[in-house]
Order: sequence, then C-alpha cells, then structure tokens
Amino acid sequence: MEQVLSHLKAQRDAHLKWTRDLCAIPSISTKQEHRADVAKSVQFTHELCEKIGLKSRVMETGGHPLVYAEWTGAPNAPTFLAYGHVDVQPTGDLSLWNADPFEPIVKGDWLICRGSADDKGQVLLYLRAAEAWLKTHGKLPVNMKFLIEAEEEIGSPNLAPFVSKHRDMLAAEAVLISDTGMYKDGYPTLTIGTRGLVYKEVLVSGPTVDLHSGTHGGVIPNPTNVIARLVASLHDADGKVTVKDFYKNVVDASAEERKRLAELPFNEREYLDSLGPNTMPAGEKGWTTQERRSCRPTLDCNGIFGGFMQPGANTIIPAKAGAKISMRLVPNQNAEKIAAAFDETIRERCPKGVKLEIHSHGSADAYVTPIDSPVLKAAERALQDAYGQKPALIREGGSLPILPMFQRELGAPSILLGFASPHCNAHGPNEKAFIPDLDRGAETIARLFQLLAK
Amino acid sequence: MEQVLSHLKAQRDAHLKWTRDLCAIPSISTKQEHRADVAKSVQFTHELCEKIGLKSRVMETGGHPLVYAEWTGAPNAPTFLAYGHVDVQPTGDLSLWNADPFEPIVKGDWLICRGSADDKGQVLLYLRAAEAWLKTHGKLPVNMKFLIEAEEEIGSPNLAPFVSKHRDMLAAEAVLISDTGMYKDGYPTLTIGTRGLVYKEVLVSGPTVDLHSGTHGGVIPNPTNVIARLVASLHDADGKVTVKDFYKNVVDASAEERKRLAELPFNEREYLDSLGPNTMPAGEKGWTTQERRSCRPTLDCNGIFGGFMQPGANTIIPAKAGAKISMRLVPNQNAEKIAAAFDETIRERCPKGVKLEIHSHGSADAYVTPIDSPVLKAAERALQDAYGQKPALIREGGSLPILPMFQRELGAPSILLGFASPHCNAHGPNEKAFIPDLDRGAETIARLFQLLAK
Repeated sequence: MEQVLSHLKAQRDAHLKWTRDLCAIPSISTKQEHRADVAKSVQFTHELCEKIGLKSRVMETGGHPLVYAEWTGAPNAPTFLAYGHVDVQPTGDLSLWNADPFEPIVKGDWLICRGSADDKGQVLLYLRAAEAWLKTHGKLPVNMKFLIEAEEEIGSPNLAPFVSKHRDMLAAEAVLISDTGMYKDGYPTLTIGTRGLVYKEVLVSGPTVDLHSGTHGGVIPNPTNVIARLVASLHDADGKVTVKDFYKNVVDASAEERKRLAELPFNEREYLDSLGPNTMPAGEKGWTTQERRSCRPTLDCNGIFGGFMQPGANTIIPAKAGAKISMRLVPNQNAEKIAAAFDETIRERCPKGVKLEIHSHGSADAYVTPIDSPVLKAAERALQDAYGQKPALIREGGSLPILPMFQRELGAPSILLGFASPHCNAHGPNEKAFIPDLDRGAETIARLFQLLAK
Repeated sequence: MEQVLSHLKAQRDAHLKWTRDLCAIPSISTKQEHRADVAKSVQFTHELCEKIGLKSRVMETGGHPLVYAEWTGAPNAPTFLAYGHVDVQPTGDLSLWNADPFEPIVKGDWLICRGSADDKGQVLLYLRAAEAWLKTHGKLPVNMKFLIEAEEEIGSPNLAPFVSKHRDMLAAEAVLISDTGMYKDGYPTLTIGTRGLVYKEVLVSGPTVDLHSGTHGGVIPNPTNVIARLVASLHDADGKVTVKDFYKNVVDASAEERKRLAELPFNEREYLDSLGPNTMPAGEKGWTTQERRSCRPTLDCNGIFGGFMQPGANTIIPAKAGAKISMRLVPNQNAEKIAAAFDETIRERCPKGVKLEIHSHGSADAYVTPIDSPVLKAAERALQDAYGQKPALIREGGSLPILPMFQRELGAPSILLGFASPHCNAHGPNEKAFIPDLDRGAETIARLFQLLAK
C-alpha cells in the first residue's frame, strides 16, 4: 500500500492534468450542438483507460457513446464495477462565470471549471487509483470494471437498456460511484440515499399568435397567467406539494436516521448565507432544513417562460407559455406513478380554452443503500484511513437515476463515496473542486481496492 | 370637394407608396439598437410634410425626435391638431411572420408589414388629405397642425412635457387621431373611449447563483415558484383582479352604453375562432365579452421568465425570475393610484427571503370623448359620407396614454377615427392594413377638413 500511496503523491500533478484536459472539453449532453464534444470526452477517457493498462473500448448506446474498461486478472478475488460520467450540465448565464467554464483554472487549492466536481474530477479518481496499483504492482487487488457514460445529465436514457443487454459483461458484487458531495468541507462522506426525480415540461398555448392586450385583454385565457396559476397551484400554504397522492407511499426517514442527521454539525444561518444574502428558509412545514433537502420529497419550478421576455415593454396576450418542473422523490415513491399523477393533476387544473401539452425529461426512483452491506463497511474504513475521521452517512438531495437500475439489472447495491465540496456549485456558475479532496479521494479508492479483496 | 376626391383617387398608388416607404423603416422605439431607424422614420415624415406644402420641422424631445408641421393660412377658420406616431412595436418571433416585417407586401387588398395599421398607415391619411386640398385648392378649409411623434409604443414618455412646453404652438379646438380600429371590417367607427394602462415589471431574486435543485431543493424560496404565485394571486376564482382597491373608483358603463354595445352585430363564436382554435371566453364574470374587452378593467401577464428556458432539462433553483404585467384601466381609475396599489399588493404578498424589485414601464389614465362634442358630430358625418353608413360609437380596449394629456394640457377633446381592421393584428405577426379602408380614410379626413370649417 505504501508504494501505491507514494506513487499517487508523485503523480499528483500529472493526474490533475488528466482532469484539466478532460474538463476542457465542453461535453454538454443536453445540447445538440455539443454532440461532437461529448463524443470527444468519451474518446479521451477511453484512451486514458488504455494508457494506464486497462482493456477499454468505446461502445454505442443509441445515444451518446460510453466507455467500458476492465482489469480482470484476479480470478480468486471479487469483482466490482466503478461507474461515473463525463458529460456536463449547460453553463447557464455566462456573465456569472469569472472565466470560461471550459478553460480549467487552478486558484489556490481549487480547480474551477464545468465538470470539475460533477463528475469528471470524481470519475477520474478510479483511474488514478487503478494506475497507481498497476504501475506499482502490475495488478489490482480485485477485479475492476469501469462503466463511464456521457448521458447522466440528460437522465441516462440509454444506460438501462445497455446494462440490461450487457448483464454478464457488467456483473459485479457492488457498484462504486463517486458523483456525490461531502457533508462539509474535509468531512469524509458516504451517501446512503439519493432522491428520485421526475422532470416535466408543461406547455400551454392559447391564441394562434400574440395578441394586442388592449384589444383582446380580458376576453380569453392568457397562457402566461394560466401557467402561473398551474405552477402556483402545486404547493399549498404549508409548502406541501399538491400533486395527487404525492405523499401516499412515502416512507419517512426513521427516528434513528433523523437523530443522526440532527447530530451532525450544521449551522443553518451559515448555510443559508452561503446561498445568497438574507436568504430565509422555506419549504414544507414540520421538517428541518437538513431533512427538507435530503429525505423529504420536493417540487421546484426550474424554468418558466412565455410572452415578451426582453427588456422593455410589449403589450401582448402571449400565444404560449411553459414551465419546467421537477420533483425530487424519496424511497417508495414510484417515479412512474408520480409522473402520471402530475400529468393528471395538471390536466384537471388547466382551464378550458387553452391547449395543454406535458412533456417528460426523464424520471428515476429514489435509492437507499442497505446500511449493513459489507462493501459499505469497507468504504467506511477506506475513508476513515484516508481522512483519519469517521465518515458521515447522509442522504443526498439530488438524484442518481441509475442506482435503482443497477440494483434491478445487476442485483448490485451502489456505494457512494462523494468528494465534491458542498460549495462546488455543480450545475451553477464557477463550478469547482477542492484539489486536496481529489487527492484524498484517489487515496481512498486505492485503499478501497485492497479492502474489498478481503 | 369633387376635385379633392378625384385627386385622391388619381394619387392612390403614389400615396400608398408613401406608406410602403415609411413602413420599410424598422422604427422600433422600444429597442435601443433601432434608435437610428426611429430617427429616420421621423426625418422621412418631415420631408414628406415639406414636400406637400406644410411648414415642417423636426423637434427634439429629450428622447426620440418628433415632427411638427402646420398650415395656418385660414385666419377666420378654426384650428385643429392631427396627432399620430411613426414608431412601431417589436416584431416578436420572426418565424411567425410570412415575410420580413419591414418589407411591405401588397397581397390582394391588404398591405402587410409592421406599422401598416399601427400607426404609419393611419397617420399618413392626414397628409394624403392635406396634399389633396393643397394641390387642388392651394389651401385647406381649416388651419391644421400636425404632431407626429415616435415614442408612442414606449408610452410617449416625452410627449406631455413637450406639449406642455409648446401649448401656444399646439393650441387647437380638438385633436384628430387615427390610431384605433374599426368595429368590423368595412364598418366606420368612432372610438369614444380608450382604456388606461399601468405596465409593471416584477423581478424576484433569491440565491446569488442558480443552485442544484437536488442539493438545495425544498430549502429556500425558489424565485420561479414565487413569481408564479405572485402572478396567480392577481386574479380570484371569478376572474376579478385582486390588486387592492382595483375596482373602487370604476365608473361602470351606463345602461344606455351597454345597450348600444349589445345591439351592434357581434358573433362571439366567430370572434373567438378568429383568435385561435377552440378558444373559450375567459375573464371577469358578470360582463359580456364585448364589455370585458372595452369598458372593463383587466390585468394580464405580458411575459414571464426565469431559470432554464431553453430546450431540454436543467435541474436548478433559478437565481431570479420576473414577469411583465399590465393593467388596462377604465374611466375614473387613477393610473398613479392603481400603480401604487399594485406595488403595495405585490410587496405584501411576496414571501420573505427573496429580493423584490418593481419597475414601471409607463402608465396612463383612461379617456372618454364627450358624446355631445360638435367635432365628434362632424367626424360622424364625414364617416357617414365616405362610407354611406352610420358609424359605430365604441370604446377601444387598448390605451392611448396621450388622450387625457391633450385634454389636460390643451383643453382639447380627442376625436378618434379608426381605420384599422379588427384583423390587422397590430403588435403581433403579419400586421396588415386593408387598402380600401386607407383610401376611404383619406377621403374621410379630406371631408372632415371641410365639415370642420363650418
């Protein structure tokens, strides 16, 4: 192990360059015009896998391609699957970035660029650890498979069919994933649950064209007013989501889990201040801020649009309007049923005289890792050894749609070792990764390979 | 009069070319980048005034310049002021236009382009009539002043100070305006009332940057949800506007006016179908469709925006959101008071934890022309002579913010002779004018000049 750790230390800068080079590729999977960039990020990853001594290939999925790589030279050792993704979210408003999102910058201990935290910086930790073992021992302590896709940010539409089709190739005792965050900066963290997701787009159209709001105002339904009413109707005065039967199957977090969560260090005022000036808590009454963001289901509008959106004034009854609305789900809420209930709720509430369309942008169930899994215990140990501190076990508010899918298709639980800072601002401007955590992450994975061999 | 009418007929094509040339200038006053085009449209109008024999000059206003022209060679005759504007609304979504909005097209009897109806096509009727009199008689039957501005579509912010400053220059018995529509195609129409306007923009900002909706969803106020709730709160279940004291000072239309309105030919189903497929009536309960669009106050969202508005999905808590909201007012609602009540209502309803800004994009009181005005009677006669039909007296749902201002500053009532088709789609795509109505409009104005001399 000493040799492996020395090697990781010596290769620190070279390994960081892998991340910088990968992050420089604007592989925004949600945007058609970045299709070639997404393919480029996959090719880069494939070549890196080959370079460090894995058997690797780029495989088609029907959508963006993915990388499958493996090292299976330990016939008597168990086999694990590492999963990650090399596609990224759109940049959003570029004026909010301090630099080009795709020109990685190192500022102090931080690597700043799109993908540094989610997930390029983290997925490469597995390749850093594998390279260290292969360079120093010529082999790994366990058999490792690597599945690195490029459609996570659009909901992994082709991953489930791919995994289903390649069950034998991908067979593993557990799936290792680093695509989550740390509880606090420097606080080693295992995520034992993620929320599910249902993402919908509601479009309302009324008059054939934008109309003069003087000549026709007050006469027919106005699509922007209708969309506002529909979105507003989705919460009641207590912040509860009003989608039909939304809470019906929710399994509440246990008293024990709520107690452990409450015991973790947490300064609510500091947290709120980190999001913006004078931020106040909001949301479902009866649950703490920590609970609302992890083990409670939520509904948020992610975008709303319609009519005249530029500076100035234009007096129109807009022809159409829309909203993007996503729901975060918790264990036992069935994403398909919630999606159907959402559609039904909107259809019931939409007034006559407008045309309603509801589109889906992906859905996924929530997931919980069995707390007694031996692989989870090994991961806990690896983190403790690398950080010198017992890790937090938390639930993540975000979604990893592929966790319940891996359980279903491979019968394998997922172990989530997260190394993204709580301030990494994934999906937002100036996304960043704390470089010492990337280093400790690589060490953790290298240690985990050995612990899993036992 | 015969000579004047013959001249108008002979010059029909030449006069139409004036309109086409003026409409070819993209004088969008709301857009900074079209500032030079707006100035060009003013210059064009000035040169046309000079060419036909008026004394004309371009005058500064502090904003876009305007044209003032006059012919005052009839010392014993009364003096009237013709008002119009040569700026236009933005084009909106260009893909909805069948051709370039600023390349005027004649298709059958229609002139299709931005400004053909509102108001370039109509304001030029006064110059056509003046030219016909001056060319055939060397003089006009009355003294005429012409005030043609280029800021109407942004609420005429500099017109009131200008008129106030030039009261003597502009002094007139009444103001003649053609910037309204016809009750039905071919139905001569005098508009005896216009609605007032208060145009507001509400901006809500929350987190400093867009946040990951998984990590932070359910914790703090989401600006897009907040803006939806604010907009939705502005109507109750009966379609009444809930702005504080909104209806307090409303003077309802008289029973006589409602009766006359109800007697006009109106096919509601046909009207609704003309706006879009399967359109249903909506709005304030207790009033007919005709009343809701003319003599009732309304509130409409003209645009709503925030967060991720492009195709695809982005799971964010948006940093900010906004809405453009305009209210149409009726006689005795004071625009300033309504504007203040709107601000107060929004401030009261906006939840803590977001930053709220409210901006104004202009306001104007409603206006009613005294029904016993002799100038109104003369206009009724001119229309009857030109069309062979008694004109409808209606209220227009749109706003002409300058009408109460002319009354206040010049003590002059406004007479609204409208020649825009109900299908002209002013402010929308494929705006158009019915050329025979432009011809009859020019004839009406030429006849009116004579009738006003008596």
